[in-house]
Amino acid sequence: MLGNLLEPELRDLIQRREFNQLRAVLCAFPAPDIVEIFTDLNPRDEAVLLRLLPHDLAADVFEHLDYEDQEHVLQALGDEEVARILNEMAPDERTALLEELPAAATQKLLNLLSPSERKVAAALLGYPPGSIGRRMTPDYVAIQERWTVGDVLTHLRAVGRDREMLNQMYVVSDNDKGKGALVDWVRLRNVVVSELHVPVVDLLEHKNWALRASDPQDRAVEAFRKYDTTMLPVVDSYGVLVGVITVDDVLDLAEEQATEDIQKLGGVEALDAPYLRVGLFTMVRKRAGWLAVLFLGEMLTATAMAYFEDEIAKAVVLALFVPLIISSGGNSGSQATSLIIRAMAVGDIRLRDWWRVLWRELVSGLCLGSVLAVIALARILLWPNRDQLYGAHYALVAAAVAGSLVGVVLFGSLIGAMLPFILRRLNFDPAVSSAPLVATLVDVTGLVIYFSVAYRILHGTLL
Amino acid sequence: MLGNLLEPELRDLIQRREFNQLRAVLCAFPAPDIVEIFTDLNPRDEAVLLRLLPHDLAADVFEHLDYEDQEHVLQALGDEEVARILNEMAPDERTALLEELPAAATQKLLNLLSPSERKVAAALLGYPPGSIGRRMTPDYVAIQERWTVGDVLTHLRAVGRDREMLNQMYVVSDNDKGKGALVDWVRLRNVVVSELHVPVVDLLEHKNWALRASDPQDRAVEAFRKYDTTMLPVVDSYGVLVGVITVDDVLDLAEEQATEDIQKLGGVEALDAPYLRVGLFTMVRKRAGWLAVLFLGEMLTATAMAYFEDEIAKAVVLALFVPLIISSGGNSGSQATSLIIRAMAVGDIRLRDWWRVLWRELVSGLCLGSVLAVIALARILLWPNRDQLYGAHYALVAAAVAGSLVGVVLFGSLIGAMLPFILRRLNFDPAVSSAPLVATLVDVTGLVIYFSVAYRILHGTLL
Repeated sequence: MLGNLLEPELRDLIQRREFNQLRAVLCAFPAPDIVEIFTDLNPRDEAVLLRLLPHDLAADVFEHLDYEDQEHVLQALGDEEVARILNEMAPDERTALLEELPAAATQKLLNLLSPSERKVAAALLGYPPGSIGRRMTPDYVAIQERWTVGDVLTHLRAVGRDREMLNQMYVVSDNDKGKGALVDWVRLRNVVVSELHVPVVDLLEHKNWALRASDPQDRAVEAFRKYDTTMLPVVDSYGVLVGVITVDDVLDLAEEQATEDIQKLGGVEALDAPYLRVGLFTMVRKRAGWLAVLFLGEMLTATAMAYFEDEIAKAVVLALFVPLIISSGGNSGSQATSLIIRAMAVGDIRLRDWWRVLWRELVSGLCLGSVLAVIALARILLWPNRDQLYGAHYALVAAAVAGSLVGVVLFGSLIGAMLPFILRRLNFDPAVSSAPLVATLVDVTGLVIYFSVAYRILHGTLL
Repeated sequence: MLGNLLEPELRDLIQRREFNQLRAVLCAFPAPDIVEIFTDLNPRDEAVLLRLLPHDLAADVFEHLDYEDQEHVLQALGDEEVARILNEMAPDERTALLEELPAAATQKLLNLLSPSERKVAAALLGYPPGSIGRRMTPDYVAIQERWTVGDVLTHLRAVGRDREMLNQMYVVSDNDKGKGALVDWVRLRNVVVSELHVPVVDLLEHKNWALRASDPQDRAVEAFRKYDTTMLPVVDSYGVLVGVITVDDVLDLAEEQATEDIQKLGGVEALDAPYLRVGLFTMVRKRAGWLAVLFLGEMLTATAMAYFEDEIAKAVVLALFVPLIISSGGNSGSQATSLIIRAMAVGDIRLRDWWRVLWRELVSGLCLGSVLAVIALARILLWPNRDQLYGAHYALVAAAVAGSLVGVVLFGSLIGAMLPFILRRLNFDPAVSSAPLVATLVDVTGLVIYFSVAYRILHGTLL
């Protein structure tokens, strides 16, 4: 919105090289608003503007750009400016960027960091991709157990300015055998509401909520959902405090997870970038893979149909209902699998709940199938020119269609609900059980159910 | 996990009425862990345990239960305990609970609140359902512009203990014409790292980030995503500060939104509760509605097939590929619609981007259709007994199948991508454009495309 309004004016100022006026306009806005202005500019103009901003604002704006923009801007900036911005960035945001870049670019950027920042960056990159260690920041405040509230406030005035998050302060052990081990923590809010002489030990939280740096990032999302807090400490395998993770990172993580799950449910490999930013070729590749696999599976329907070719030739009327029946199975399967995958993702359903789910889907599937069967019966039996359209045996055809609908919808619900359990049991991501995959599985079986039921009912009359 | 380990022991203690020992065991855990223990107990036992806990811990545990559990526990508790717990709850969590209950129950609970808490609760309930006002808490800290850091810290020691969130403190106007209007704010972290004599005006943020209480809640999710902050002030239509909203509520909101979108994408009405908690009948109802609508739409496939019945009778081989072709259209449509809906939800795509999306899907659809066409050609032309299976004109049949695949996949991608735009333009929720809805639309058109292409190519030979 802001971007739209200011864009022509800014473009004009850039073109006329009115740098003083540009700086004055930009500095009037907070970083997230400047980012909105940036998104529609080209990387070269973005680089020009970044160079104009004061150090810390430039780093702040840069952090808010998406990875692709960041990469382009880095290419357009000189080494000196890159070093300036990288050294000012929050360590967790910097790691996220370095993670996205090709290895050679990462190495080049690491060399631009000051020795102390390089040590921090290299340590964070030492944790496996997708681990909590990659998203943490080492800018926490450590305090001593023997201090008073007054000591803590004095300490904060000395070191707090450089720390990203102060909401929690951590008491770490300083005796020789467990040096640096996380002992406990206090909340800043409890410190500021207490009298200065109150000892820190009175404010300890006595909560053992630390995350492990090597754990996967969805563990962090779970923990924040459970504990409703704004930050959590991260320890290594020896219990030594190595960083903190903050809720704004977790909000991003939770959104990324939901996006991935939705894309997988739609039968697409996770894009890992905004839709309009992904190269056309990459997008086609990420979609073609699954589409081709599904197509190969779906080819079994042609085989199944060929198996029933004689029946179709004898009673063409049967072919009329094929799309209706298989799509009903697919739709009910797609409903079930979406419900179960999401319930698993947010922790409403665990592996051991499988039989409760099976039971619910058995009942639901029968009910839903019966509803559709009644609609189908009504449509065929009450249609004005039913005997011309569906032949003399239209009542039997209606029975065959209705009967197989119950079977197909039941089967669709069961497959859609159980496939995520099976995938998770085999340690695959349950979200791979996409709606299209379920539909494909159900299509083939649906045809077999339909023609078998039809054969039973119509044998001796139509067939 | 913890719940599993302790459950038998706890059940035993409850049965043996060993209340002292129970209290000792429970008080050793923080609230979220006690909640885990609770989830597998029945409401009567939950009520017994809640009664044992100290006031504030009981309220804390109660806040973490889900709405259905909360409702059951309230029924099992006496009025006195209910009043105790409700008065201790955070106002935003309490509003969320009252919102879920039937109107009569809400009124009864409001009467149990102390006069001051009742005023707060009634005010929050005065905002429309789904608005930011319903999720905010009035427990913020207001300060004066003329104060110093020392004054603020003294004020915090006096009032801070009762406030939910202290990360930001708000400077409100106290002159007569704009009494209570939000002027600016300071961050607690800047206060604690500054010397005591520093005036508050030096620490002002100069950021105009307030949310409107009457705005919908997804506006809050957007704002937190954009500003990366832990709380935001909420003002009424006169700019008067009425509350704050915190990031933990927003994390919950973002998750609820993603869950709803996933359920709608799967063709289910939003369940509004965990899968295993929704009554079987409610779940069937929420699924049957859409399933029946889709079924009625899908009936058009039977009409379309009937229209081509003569062609099918003449060349039964055409019927064999019907499921393959329509499902390929459905799958590509399902991919496109999942990508676009999620991109819209997280703000990557706006309404005005429709033509860029159209162009991308045009290219993607053609590429994806061609990939599948090549696979189909290979399958039919290279199959060992192709002339027995597909007849003497198998090459023409292959051409018809391949040609219509390109058309159907292109059409599926375009419909799947454009439907969310059309829905949003008409002010419907774009997530209604579920994968099953797109598949149904594509199925009918896919049949028409297939038989038209086949008629062109096979006219004079098979047809």
